[in-house]
Amino acid sequence: VTVAAQCAAAAKLEVIAVPGLPVVEAGTDLPHALERALAEAQFELRDGDVVVIPSKVVSRAEGRFVDLQTVEPSPRAVELALATGKEANAVELILRESTAVSRTARGVLVVRHRLGFIAANAGIDLSNALPAHAPEGTGPWALLLPEAPDASAERIRGVLSASSGAAIGIVISDSFGRPFRLGTVGAAIGVAGLPALWDRRGEEDLFGRVLEHTITALADQVAAAADLVAGQAAEGRGLIVVRGLSFRVGTHSAAALIRSPEEDLYA
Amino acid sequence: VTVAAQCAAAAKLEVIAVPGLPVVEAGTDLPHALERALAEAQFELRDGDVVVIPSKVVSRAEGRFVDLQTVEPSPRAVELALATGKEANAVELILRESTAVSRTARGVLVVRHRLGFIAANAGIDLSNALPAHAPEGTGPWALLLPEAPDASAERIRGVLSASSGAAIGIVISDSFGRPFRLGTVGAAIGVAGLPALWDRRGEEDLFGRVLEHTITALADQVAAAADLVAGQAAEGRGLIVVRGLSFRVGTHSAAALIRSPEEDLYA
Repeated sequence: VTVAAQCAAAAKLEVIAVPGLPVVEAGTDLPHALERALAEAQFELRDGDVVVIPSKVVSRAEGRFVDLQTVEPSPRAVELALATGKEANAVELILRESTAVSRTARGVLVVRHRLGFIAANAGIDLSNALPAHAPEGTGPWALLLPEAPDASAERIRGVLSASSGAAIGIVISDSFGRPFRLGTVGAAIGVAGLPALWDRRGEEDLFGRVLEHTITALADQVAAAADLVAGQAAEGRGLIVVRGLSFRVGTHSAAALIRSPEEDLYA
Repeated sequence: VTVAAQCAAAAKLEVIAVPGLPVVEAGTDLPHALERALAEAQFELRDGDVVVIPSKVVSRAEGRFVDLQTVEPSPRAVELALATGKEANAVELILRESTAVSRTARGVLVVRHRLGFIAANAGIDLSNALPAHAPEGTGPWALLLPEAPDASAERIRGVLSASSGAAIGIVISDSFGRPFRLGTVGAAIGVAGLPALWDRRGEEDLFGRVLEHTITALADQVAAAADLVAGQAAEGRGLIVVRGLSFRVGTHSAAALIRSPEEDLYA
């Protein structure tokens, strides 16, 4: 696990929804669409800015739509569909995106996603997805998570840092439910530039003693802060900038946020 | 569970560390200390502001220090101390603050806190706590979570809303580890004024369809955003304001964030 110590936060952070990103469709060149939205909003990226993009926007650009009619359920999917009350073809799609089943209950199928994290329904949007120009008689449609979110984040970082000249980070976010607690929170499924974890252990507390047990889930907290303004889905807040952090840009991965199955007392 | 639909976020949020709160000691009148810090910083609270205070600040004011030398371990604590490698008197204190043990492992004791949430070590600070003027030969000291964080938040809200005239919310935050994911995140253990959960289910998404599955853990995300600036413990950021939310002030509880044991597939 790579943990960055070179990170700091100003006494003031801003979380800004940048307007103007059009609805993203399969084939949209997302990095350049983001670049144009920033330019049209006359929003200049600065060193330390983190650009947060909801996974759904990235998935749409990558054309990660699947027509559920075309998905043939396996015997295992049929069995889990009975146990959960979900549609068998939806369950099949969830299993194809997963490496293991974590928990099942009525209406609930929690899995380990092929990217490593634990997520209900493998993070697949089964209710809201609709590609542009879906032919008559197709669907219902599902929208999978991005193929490789760290790589998608890195492509976006390359374009936006080249055009702005700024040392920036990228977070691709999703909303996750949680064991123990109700309500969803933003979480990072892809990062670039920004360290996913921030090691505060060397810092001293108010009384000059060294802090213990303080590795912060930096990228998850950035995603949570962005989710607060991404709230109004009707306004299409697909481009959010968190401003006021300070970090050394490096090569990082959202995989650093994932507890390995061997170290996980709950999964 | 009370869920608020009357909440919104501006296109821009600010997360501001207000300087000037002195080190809080047992007996400090925290609401008025916060009021003075805001006045000295010439920081005027506005409608919709949420004041976030780390639980440790509240605990110190409430004098929640315990001298571990004075804690007599029960047989159950001795047994769990052997299983976890923790000190038996620390385990005893954890058990006294808990209603059930969730998981144990070497160095790990996760419990259901008497306030309902799941937390490692019952949220007790076992490494860093030190009261002012601790007599020679006492300690090591532990610092328990606040006695009743919702009530503490409500007292603070009363004082700060009276002096400012603003409709504000209060969050008492802690940093929690998580199953599945590494790194700590801010979470709300006490709220006042602000709804802990935000029901977005009635809102429409970009394409005019009603959003599903979108009850957001508003107070936890506010705590996470605040934790990003609370980072530098050495600077004593005990008073953070999240500005840009819009909510109808009401009677709320952080208990709304807790998944009941019956509904929890993991606890």
